[in-house]
Amino acid sequence: MRNVQVMKLREGVEWAVHCCIILSWVPEGRAVPVAKLAEFHGLPPAYLNKQMNALARAGIVSSHPGPRGGFRLSRVPEEISLMDVAVAIDGQAQAFLCTGIRHQGVAGRITGPEARRIPCTVAQAFSTAELAWRHRLAGQTIADLAETVRQTNPTAPDHIHHWFNHN
Amino acid sequence: MRNVQVMKLREGVEWAVHCCIILSWVPEGRAVPVAKLAEFHGLPPAYLNKQMNALARAGIVSSHPGPRGGFRLSRVPEEISLMDVAVAIDGQAQAFLCTGIRHQGVAGRITGPEARRIPCTVAQAFSTAELAWRHRLAGQTIADLAETVRQTNPTAPDHIHHWFNHN
Repeated sequence: MRNVQVMKLREGVEWAVHCCIILSWVPEGRAVPVAKLAEFHGLPPAYLNKQMNALARAGIVSSHPGPRGGFRLSRVPEEISLMDVAVAIDGQAQAFLCTGIRHQGVAGRITGPEARRIPCTVAQAFSTAELAWRHRLAGQTIADLAETVRQTNPTAPDHIHHWFNHN
Repeated sequence: MRNVQVMKLREGVEWAVHCCIILSWVPEGRAVPVAKLAEFHGLPPAYLNKQMNALARAGIVSSHPGPRGGFRLSRVPEEISLMDVAVAIDGQAQAFLCTGIRHQGVAGRITGPEARRIPCTVAQAFSTAELAWRHRLAGQTIADLAETVRQTNPTAPDHIHHWFNHN
């Protein structure tokens, strides 16, 4: 078996989504230093900081300097979708790489320059599938996930709240 | 802007799908050498050969040795989905990389070993979205795409047929 992947998202996406859920549970207006988020999930602080700054550039969190500084959500968790987070960490480009081979070689001579005005059937089929994926991620928010976690583990938000308040 | 991608498929997926469409148009039972497929789309033969061999290992095409040898589809194009081709070239793994950070650090101590029996909410949300993507690709076949190409460019199959017969 070859150890390759059909599609691949960076591990930073996992980190960023979990951190957004955590930030949705800390008291409103409170900023959390990246060192605490890293300690909480056992992650390397410098690399997590990169992911949090990517979220900040996307307007999902805001960064606050100073001794009580850190990151906090910059909008309500109901308005942060998984697609927002995935795009913030991994970018916007399409998964399917269309290099236009139908315009190359003999194929290009057969179909002629007219074909460039017609979208590629293969690229369109993959785009349609990807839209279904994006649509699902766009329809799930950090608030939805936080609520599901709360249902499966009702004491988690209080424990987390307590740890962030006392450490 | 960072030049990274949310999900990424190898360019070999594009090549393999186009080659399957071409093979669906050559006369039944006829094998096409990889050099001709490569010439047709202006692709490097050695690298295209790797992709065709991956399709052969997945049972999508079969490889035939000898002077009139080459590749041909090993089942009807109605039974080859885009998902089959994508998996043959890029593997089966999930796009979302779950490294289980909820079990690490302080989070692991708070949730305890019991949490390992509950699926991760974040991983599940991404899996559901990915299933929508797979479902769409599984529902589109090489025959569907060949028919769409034929509708947008009615003379293409005949031209292609002619070129493969006379070159």
